[in-house]
Amino acid sequence: MTVLLLDHVAIATPDLEAGSAPYVALGLNPEGPDEDVASQGVRVRAFQVGETLIELLMPTRDDSPIAAFLARKGPGLHHTAYRVADLNAEMARLRADGARFLNEEPTPGRAGSRVAFLHPKWGAGTLIELVEHPAGGHPAGGHG
Amino acid sequence: MTVLLLDHVAIATPDLEAGSAPYVALGLNPEGPDEDVASQGVRVRAFQVGETLIELLMPTRDDSPIAAFLARKGPGLHHTAYRVADLNAEMARLRADGARFLNEEPTPGRAGSRVAFLHPKWGAGTLIELVEHPAGGHPAGGHG
Repeated sequence: MTVLLLDHVAIATPDLEAGSAPYVALGLNPEGPDEDVASQGVRVRAFQVGETLIELLMPTRDDSPIAAFLARKGPGLHHTAYRVADLNAEMARLRADGARFLNEEPTPGRAGSRVAFLHPKWGAGTLIELVEHPAGGHPAGGHG
Repeated sequence: MTVLLLDHVAIATPDLEAGSAPYVALGLNPEGPDEDVASQGVRVRAFQVGETLIELLMPTRDDSPIAAFLARKGPGLHHTAYRVADLNAEMARLRADGARFLNEEPTPGRAGSRVAFLHPKWGAGTLIELVEHPAGGHPAGGHG
């Protein structure tokens, strides 16, 4: 079994405050300060719910993929991310199975993670990300 | 704290087999047989990942909300659902806070659950569902 957990559900928003309102109303609290992820051109606000994070993504530059998504579709659910123990091994396994990735090599994600996005066609219409956390950096563990 | 867990992430698909392919490739297995949820006009295939389910929703009639979603947006992420202990109490609490629901009263969901959908405007662009499971029917518990 290679897939461990649903790491996060990502939601595109033009405004972290407005986007946070429903999650705050549900009773969730932001997990630490907002974090800029330069590789994706986004600022991230994360809400922990059980072992998963709800991540709100706000674009920080015009050429961010999230800016393009918001222009095309408006605010809403953007992708799901699965936590794996060994990202390189999982990428190799899925490539051998015919999968295509949007980024050929892992790129930096939030909170020191390494991430890779699978092509939406592979995901049957949804964007799927794989996430490897640094040893000990399990967000539902020590940082919760 | 009223919100317990991310119960499921729902994905609209015109074809449960094609929609399943990425989740099977990731290493997940369907949780039990597909289930028809008459109140929503969908057939549901669920994949358990940790404490959360990935639910694929295929319309079973032309006036299903999922048929309308597919016609408008194509296959993709549809809603997130939060597990609550007492749905009526949570609906009353959120209504007192200004929330609007799509269904005034709880309706039947998958696996004997009772569910209610919040208005997408309340969710800042995403559709949010609340789920109450029957006592002992926690899907990440005895049925996993």
